[in-house]
Amino acid sequence: MTLNASQEISLLRETKYETRRPTVPAMEEILYEPIPLLDHGFIRVIDYMGDDSAVVQAARVSYGKGTKQINEDKGLINYLLRHFHTTPFEMCEIKFHLKMPIFVARQWLRHRTASVNEYSARYSILDREFYVPEPDQLAIQSKTNRQGRAETLNPFQAHEVLQILKEDATKAYDHYQQFLNQDMDGQVIDPEKPGIARELARINLPVNYYTQMYWKINLHNWMHFLRLRADEHAQYEIRVYAQAMLDVFQRWVPFTYQAFCDYRLNSMNLSAKALQAIKLMLKGETVTAETVGMSPGEWREFQGVLAAS
Amino acid sequence: MTLNASQEISLLRETKYETRRPTVPAMEEILYEPIPLLDHGFIRVIDYMGDDSAVVQAARVSYGKGTKQINEDKGLINYLLRHFHTTPFEMCEIKFHLKMPIFVARQWLRHRTASVNEYSARYSILDREFYVPEPDQLAIQSKTNRQGRAETLNPFQAHEVLQILKEDATKAYDHYQQFLNQDMDGQVIDPEKPGIARELARINLPVNYYTQMYWKINLHNWMHFLRLRADEHAQYEIRVYAQAMLDVFQRWVPFTYQAFCDYRLNSMNLSAKALQAIKLMLKGETVTAETVGMSPGEWREFQGVLAAS
Amino acid sequence: MTLNASQEISLLRETKYETRRPTVPAMEEILYEPIPLLDHGFIRVIDYMGDDSAVVQAARVSYGKGTKQINEDKGLINYLLRHFHTTPFEMCEIKFHLKMPIFVARQWLRHRTASVNEYSARYSILDREFYVPEPDQLAIQSKTNRQGRAETLNPFQAHEVLQILKEDATKAYDHYQQFLNQDMDGQVIDPEKPGIARELARINLPVNYYTQMYWKINLHNWMHFLRLRADEHAQYEIRVYAQAMLDVFQRWVPFTYQAFCDYRLNSMNLSAKALQAIKLMLKGETVTAETVGMSPGEWREFQGVLAAS
Amino acid sequence: MTLNASQEISLLRETKYETRRPTVPAMEEILYEPIPLLDHGFIRVIDYMGDDSAVVQAARVSYGKGTKQINEDKGLINYLLRHFHTTPFEMCEIKFHLKMPIFVARQWLRHRTASVNEYSARYSILDREFYVPEPDQLAIQSKTNRQGRAETLNPFQAHEVLQILKEDATKAYDHYQQFLNQDMDGQVIDPEKPGIARELARINLPVNYYTQMYWKINLHNWMHFLRLRADEHAQYEIRVYAQAMLDVFQRWVPFTYQAFCDYRLNSMNLSAKALQAIKLMLKGETVTAETVGMSPGEWREFQGVLAAS
Repeated sequence: MTLNASQEISLLRETKYETRRPTVPAMEEILYEPIPLLDHGFIRVIDYMGDDSAVVQAARVSYGKGTKQINEDKGLINYLLRHFHTTPFEMCEIKFHLKMPIFVARQWLRHRTASVNEYSARYSILDREFYVPEPDQLAIQSKTNRQGRAETLNPFQAHEVLQILKEDATKAYDHYQQFLNQDMDGQVIDPEKPGIARELARINLPVNYYTQMYWKINLHNWMHFLRLRADEHAQYEIRVYAQAMLDVFQRWVPFTYQAFCDYRLNSMNLSAKALQAIKLMLKGETVTAETVGMSPGEWREFQGVLAAS
Repeated sequence: MTLNASQEISLLRETKYETRRPTVPAMEEILYEPIPLLDHGFIRVIDYMGDDSAVVQAARVSYGKGTKQINEDKGLINYLLRHFHTTPFEMCEIKFHLKMPIFVARQWLRHRTASVNEYSARYSILDREFYVPEPDQLAIQSKTNRQGRAETLNPFQAHEVLQILKEDATKAYDHYQQFLNQDMDGQVIDPEKPGIARELARINLPVNYYTQMYWKINLHNWMHFLRLRADEHAQYEIRVYAQAMLDVFQRWVPFTYQAFCDYRLNSMNLSAKALQAIKLMLKGETVTAETVGMSPGEWREFQGVLAAS
Repeated sequence: MTLNASQEISLLRETKYETRRPTVPAMEEILYEPIPLLDHGFIRVIDYMGDDSAVVQAARVSYGKGTKQINEDKGLINYLLRHFHTTPFEMCEIKFHLKMPIFVARQWLRHRTASVNEYSARYSILDREFYVPEPDQLAIQSKTNRQGRAETLNPFQAHEVLQILKEDATKAYDHYQQFLNQDMDGQVIDPEKPGIARELARINLPVNYYTQMYWKINLHNWMHFLRLRADEHAQYEIRVYAQAMLDVFQRWVPFTYQAFCDYRLNSMNLSAKALQAIKLMLKGETVTAETVGMSPGEWREFQGVLAAS
Repeated sequence: MTLNASQEISLLRETKYETRRPTVPAMEEILYEPIPLLDHGFIRVIDYMGDDSAVVQAARVSYGKGTKQINEDKGLINYLLRHFHTTPFEMCEIKFHLKMPIFVARQWLRHRTASVNEYSARYSILDREFYVPEPDQLAIQSKTNRQGRAETLNPFQAHEVLQILKEDATKAYDHYQQFLNQDMDGQVIDPEKPGIARELARINLPVNYYTQMYWKINLHNWMHFLRLRADEHAQYEIRVYAQAMLDVFQRWVPFTYQAFCDYRLNSMNLSAKALQAIKLMLKGETVTAETVGMSPGEWREFQGVLAAS
């Protein structure tokens, strides 16, 4: 982040207004401040609409806050989430400014229910910022999970990989500047030559380059995103963002957050077969994959659920 | 609105908070206050997120407000709307509490891009409130527009229609209470009988009964809604709501409102044929429907556009 | 359905074409045929796109069918649904013509992910067709479930309710015709009088009148709809439609249907607390609501899951 | 495309079925066949649902085809598109298999209204295929349009740029294989070393590498996509795809295509100010930007519209 960016943020943070809208002090504290992630990324909360009460208010279609007693509100939020009455959670909205590598942005933007404005490399010039993993994140291909990682690389091999990543990314940016015919300070490099179009110059950059976006989503769709991306099966580099967002979630709507942990994040969808297996086991019967007609893979997953602490 | 509702609204309006979020004083003024429409309906702004600057900020993916000079902002907003760069307008959000007849709600909810929580007649009991048009809104069927109105009914016939509407709606509600076995004060009418299920009791009520909902939409989708529903081809009863919302629009994001009037509300999509016709006319040529291959209906519409002041 | 409608359907059914597209004989059998529901309603399959193989093909982003062996396909479909990899199920699409009471349509159209064209009562005249429940569906209000039914009404009281429903609906239609000044055969009733606009004349009709629509949805969103509306908590009148659709589902994509039954329709989302309770119970411990911190309502639901056969 | 892919396509094309569904012979002809684009890309139609009649059928909510006379259908389609009655166009659906560079896919997937399954580089290994522009597409940055191209590069400079693009992409793929420790034939390169996880190995690849996806969209949303991406302001590399799709469009629903050209692709949205200017000009008055309050940029655009042949 440039000096200029810091000043703009300070300016935003210094200015305060009076409002009748639902306001969450714990969110006001962090508003506009970047929370750094990976080597050059961040998330910043730019705005929010609503709080736990706004969920209750919409569920009750009430004239006021819809609040009866604090305990009753909590119970209603639990009830709504448990029974998948999800529309009241659409009544809250959050907006972020995000910076992440392009390959993370590619996964991120598969979620179609958010509003997005991404930095345009057709229109503007990208910064010389690319993602290089921490050595302890450089892992070998998992044998059991086709889209996962296994053990960490040995330090020697890790060093080699990181070296290549840095060199290739650096050279790609040098060529980007050569194509644009423009140096770091925006000065023309070779006055005899024209620069090629930005929309073409950028096609040589690798997907570990950083991009930025404004991203706005309602609480219901955000929970769906977080459940999938804070999951251990998500790629580490996107999971880091989802996990940082869980802290923001807890600040913003603590009742909903607690219900989310219980009924979504740490819940399990048990199939008809799994439910049958449990009932038999509770009766003291011995159950195998065959008893309930599960495939080996499904049985392994089911055993995993029962074993997890 | 009951006394209780008024008190709840007063309570909300009295409480003020300090915030760092973009705040629009003209919106704070009207927050939570019902704006009455038709005989028993209203719109109430419950919350809003963002302002004109938030559009600019997202379009520029900036760290601060994104604002350079007030004039430049205005120009950018005009440019974005003129060129259908609509995503930055998704960055603002507005939430309403609405009360309207069921037949209006049916048209309203055809717009799928909003979040909605509607009052449930399975769960709760509807009020004895139904819509009866003003006599000057009772019009005969248009001959030229299959879904429109022509002249107003004569007073005698109007009186007859209104009489029937009132009687039928009143009797329907009497039967609703009889089915529920519950009077206006929530007291059991006949202790010997059970009331039938609310979800069944309500099936006898006509579509002019009032319903309520919380409704939240982003600025882009709201503009789309308003363009269609503030249009003279929309049914009068929904148009009244859309027009009241235009005033809220102007308060909230005045630059965007002005651009909306120029590039959407009062603009026209001219077909390739219409553009060709205009070019020929500007050259002084005489143009007919045949010259440019328009159908009679299309030609009539085109003449209408040129004639409108 | 009029004679004319039957003829149009016969005409559609008689015509056959040659296609390279995935084709499901069991669906061809029922294409265009109305499946009658309630007293005047129906569902009719109008078109479909894709089959079980199309799910596999998209999941594998393959050049051909994506099919390896029939067993492997089935396993992949199970895997996808079990792990909520839902996008391949968006690759199949189904289109219906539906006829249902307005109060059912109101619940139906809360699902925003479908494409809809509804019969317009601003543009056309509604038929004299309204829903009257079967006597065994007339039930009293449930005490435990605020939006549910309990025991059936006694025959005497049922007769009374049905009588009122029929009379009110009949009178409402008589007034509708009087407003329109048009009889059943489309003839003007009183040549001295104009008819009022269709969009106004219909506001007196109760919500048990039938409406019609074309409704198109992808397989993923349809499963979501069916899970909610074939559920015992859904109102009986919409559940009847969802259940008839389950038969269509089984015809169309039998592997997906089987997976849907196991992983969605008859599955349960168990909260973190419920999972903990089960683990303790499997260890032989006595577990109460307090042990795992469940509310009384939640504990009751949890007991229900374990008790269900 | 591999030999294997060709065989799979032939197999699909050889098999024919009998169907009652609307079928379009001109679409059957091209079904499954890749239409090559850029240096390694393609579009392939995989499936379609509906035809021009299906639009009419839904608009009329009819039992049969909804068709009266062929001319009346054409007129209705024109009317619907002209008046933005867009829902009947949602009743047709088309599915493609697409291959395109990542930077094109990034623009493509900003359209959120389609269903997508993209080839996963976490799960599978990407091919050694990258996009290198034709020399006559290598252009310098436009001065007037911040996101556009101006003149073509001189051949000498073009050669230099293409050389760098090829070298960098080739080296990136060499490193990709080294990271995966796997050669072109899927053989392990160095048996002493593990390969790093696929999800990490790919972060070094530039955005001109090719990706593939299944992509399904309804006719309404497709028209929106095509209007934006077949436009001259779209980047050349995505425009090529949109233009190839226009040919498919014309084959599939020729009436809708013609209406689309007239009322969307070659139409203009004229602002209130532009309309006022035209009216004054038709009266013979001299009009300037000031007369109607247009900005210089807007006036330039308006002059462009009038000048375009």
